[in-house]
Amino acid sequence: MAEPEPRAPGERGRFITFEGIDGSGKSTQARRLAASMPDALLTREPGGSAGAEEIRELVLTGDPGRWSPETELLLFTAARRDHLEKTIRPALADGRTVVCDRFADSTRIYQGATRGNLRAKVDQLHALMIGTEPDLTFIIDMDPATALARGIARPDAESRFEEFGLDLQTRVREGFLELAEQFSDRCIVIDGGRDEDSVAEDIAARLASR
Amino acid sequence: MAEPEPRAPGERGRFITFEGIDGSGKSTQARRLAASMPDALLTREPGGSAGAEEIRELVLTGDPGRWSPETELLLFTAARRDHLEKTIRPALADGRTVVCDRFADSTRIYQGATRGNLRAKVDQLHALMIGTEPDLTFIIDMDPATALARGIARPDAESRFEEFGLDLQTRVREGFLELAEQFSDRCIVIDGGRDEDSVAEDIAARLASR
Repeated sequence: MAEPEPRAPGERGRFITFEGIDGSGKSTQARRLAASMPDALLTREPGGSAGAEEIRELVLTGDPGRWSPETELLLFTAARRDHLEKTIRPALADGRTVVCDRFADSTRIYQGATRGNLRAKVDQLHALMIGTEPDLTFIIDMDPATALARGIARPDAESRFEEFGLDLQTRVREGFLELAEQFSDRCIVIDGGRDEDSVAEDIAARLASR
Repeated sequence: MAEPEPRAPGERGRFITFEGIDGSGKSTQARRLAASMPDALLTREPGGSAGAEEIRELVLTGDPGRWSPETELLLFTAARRDHLEKTIRPALADGRTVVCDRFADSTRIYQGATRGNLRAKVDQLHALMIGTEPDLTFIIDMDPATALARGIARPDAESRFEEFGLDLQTRVREGFLELAEQFSDRCIVIDGGRDEDSVAEDIAARLASR
């Protein structure tokens, strides 16, 4: 398998990711955007391909404390590599739009900024083994107290990220806002504290203007 | 979890690895050496800790073609990181000798030289996420035709590496011999084409002379 190939703009499909704190509504908005486009492929991380789902299961079930931040980072990167090879790149090569609920930015924030200060390693590992960045990233910004209430209210097998509490959600929100400045060419911050239809309309309008 | 700490020579235990092609007798010799030392911990890769065994099972069972060389490299590195943190470093910190059947050199040769020409990535990933090198590596050198016959004769769940055939075993042998030159400060090439006792005596003598 060769390096991730650089994609020529216009020649292939678009790669659009949704990021944000838990409970921000990003999964709902990713699903709505994908449903509005006839050619779109909706996918998500962690997971998104058969092999990546196997790895995701290994990370997210059992005692979460059994993996160090570094080992977990390697496992998530292995899952992402499989997802990229098996799901994302083939769809982009077919000219389709790929809408992905979480991608490398989530690792930059969750593993990088909050679980052992690994941001430099996350970036180096991404450059070495993944390479691909989205064409466009919607960061659904949200008051953490509201988002936390939404997240807790939702029964979800991946509760470990939602158990981190308000302090961590606040740091994650700040991390995503800093990331939006760092990657300002591809990141659009969306106010997620509105009703679902308004947020969806905003996203559609911002996408149409690109 | 912090970086792998540099170990001061003499202050902590020794880290000794055994490498070589399948069927070379390296596992037997690793076991014999460990049994000859009262404080030694015998371990092996892939595997060697509870988490690494889970990852090893994921890689080595099921359809081996479902992982690309890059994804497999990330999974093996995740397993190695866990093995290092949970098994190797604690034993070295206690002043014990760790004898390990295969370590990063196997990845350099098998994933690096034979499964997609990933050697540069293997080395960069090792530097980024593992860091630790053995104090001493015994490379059990062996005529591939003899080793292949031995390997095939041994019933073994990890038959995938043994199915590669004589051409690949020959390239792997050459890879290990080149590696011994590259890391000549820590690698000792042992002629494995002799009876088991003679090889064990040679290893004990070479170790005593260090």
